[in-house]
Amino acid sequence: MAITISNLPEIQAFFREAAGFGQDQGNARCKQIILRVLQDAARLIEDLEITENEFWGAVDYLNRLGAKNEAGLLVAGLGIEHFLDLLADAKDEAVGRTGGTPRTIEGPLYVAGAPLCEGVARMDDGTEDDRATVMFLEGQVVDLQGKPIAGAIVDLWQANTEGNYSYFDKSQSEYNLRRRIITDDQGRYRARSIVPSGYGCNPAGPTQECLDALGRHGQRPAHVHFFISAPGHEHLTTQINLSNDKYLWDDFAYATRDGLIGDIQFVDDAVRSKARGVEGRFAEMTFDFCLRPTVSQKATERSQRPRALQSA
Amino acid sequence: MAITISNLPEIQAFFREAAGFGQDQGNARCKQIILRVLQDAARLIEDLEITENEFWGAVDYLNRLGAKNEAGLLVAGLGIEHFLDLLADAKDEAVGRTGGTPRTIEGPLYVAGAPLCEGVARMDDGTEDDRATVMFLEGQVVDLQGKPIAGAIVDLWQANTEGNYSYFDKSQSEYNLRRRIITDDQGRYRARSIVPSGYGCNPAGPTQECLDALGRHGQRPAHVHFFISAPGHEHLTTQINLSNDKYLWDDFAYATRDGLIGDIQFVDDAVRSKARGVEGRFAEMTFDFCLRPTVSQKATERSQRPRALQSA
Repeated sequence: MAITISNLPEIQAFFREAAGFGQDQGNARCKQIILRVLQDAARLIEDLEITENEFWGAVDYLNRLGAKNEAGLLVAGLGIEHFLDLLADAKDEAVGRTGGTPRTIEGPLYVAGAPLCEGVARMDDGTEDDRATVMFLEGQVVDLQGKPIAGAIVDLWQANTEGNYSYFDKSQSEYNLRRRIITDDQGRYRARSIVPSGYGCNPAGPTQECLDALGRHGQRPAHVHFFISAPGHEHLTTQINLSNDKYLWDDFAYATRDGLIGDIQFVDDAVRSKARGVEGRFAEMTFDFCLRPTVSQKATERSQRPRALQSA
Repeated sequence: MAITISNLPEIQAFFREAAGFGQDQGNARCKQIILRVLQDAARLIEDLEITENEFWGAVDYLNRLGAKNEAGLLVAGLGIEHFLDLLADAKDEAVGRTGGTPRTIEGPLYVAGAPLCEGVARMDDGTEDDRATVMFLEGQVVDLQGKPIAGAIVDLWQANTEGNYSYFDKSQSEYNLRRRIITDDQGRYRARSIVPSGYGCNPAGPTQECLDALGRHGQRPAHVHFFISAPGHEHLTTQINLSNDKYLWDDFAYATRDGLIGDIQFVDDAVRSKARGVEGRFAEMTFDFCLRPTVSQKATERSQRPRALQSA
């Protein structure tokens, strides 16, 4: 039987001391959270009889994880970010806040301050014209009654044909495939972009190392991220996951949800290509977003999660 | 009342999936540990009603912690490393392995491969002669019966007068204040060093940031670290904490323990200085180490914790 000491009064007192309960200074909420972390960590170490090598391997892993800035990727890959969505859904449901487009995970690759456009935007910088398929993405932002929301901000970001995101992939131009589009008086947004490729974790990175240890892949289906916001409505963080991707329901980050499948249509029609002003094959995808009302100013805004170029 | 979903069968099944239980590949032990981490994290989030901002603040903190390579410092500062010592003591006691010099935390600043010396070593490179006090440190390594252990390796490391460690402090020469001394036929080791200063966490680092939130300081008393090893005996990881330091019993890393206080004596005596071959005031400290026997080869070795220059 495993030896346990964490339940002893002197050990509990030690954890309270380490969590700063004996100090006048500091933040009471932080103390409460750290105390719980210490209690949970101690019980985990005891119950699973964590060895010295396992413990220090984990500490070293945390250093390597942070050094590669992958903590946000790991919490997505381990499903904790999806769990937060499910918990937020349950909290909403408990108070009758239902309906609208489902939320799903943000992921760690948003960059604040993308170009702001009225109604329509071209998202790609044209550097991949030789290998990318042009994608026309459009839709409407409406409220729960189906009424168009004019002046909503559709803030969207996506990967390129390599599954990479600008800013993090320094080979791409600034804000490539990142735009903020203000909906027109019909609540409509329109984007000319390119068909994204699915995202894969860096095979040499710490997130994939953990997934390997769990026997899991680190692939996501092709998708487009969205923040949708409008005065008087709940901020929505969501994604469209593309219907034709083999990872659609095998997403390592568990972001795919019912109601968030983008039905992408490829068009091989010279007349329609010409009408669209493109050469050869292209793709179309229509996706509408439905926002819930709110009277809370805070609920109209995205979380204060630290993000790249946050102040931009 | 807090909304909880983590106890639902479908959520537990989701955690099992995320932990790789559905996969043939991967490591069964890792899957078990990650599943427990997910279950604990979910309950913590629910019980303490962790907000989005708190969660993402913690994720960002982990990235910054790892980027500064401070995870090992944080687990010392939060007392988890000391808890591991207390738990190891309890496990030893449960099987009758008692006696000998107490263990205490290693800390994150060991560097493998320090110069190996026979019986005696000078540890400092002389660059601090203008401001350091020379310290003569010596003692004996014995077994539980008090019998000297010849050929034991006393692997010791300490800070300089600024509280900094060579390798991590690039202004110091290679392996400054780090030596491995092989005990002589009387089990004795002797070192000429300098009196170390206490260690303080980087005031701008993530460990101190956490300690600040807990209302705690990040200071350690002056101390000397030791690995002591000898064939047929349990490896010992310990420290001498200096008796004259104001932080002796207020160590942010909780490393000070009964039986590990070094009684440092300062000598102002021209005759004795001359006999020691030094100018002016110097210090003396004697400390003996007592090792427990073992028949396990593994117990004679330190843990496989990842360390600087591990392969050296």
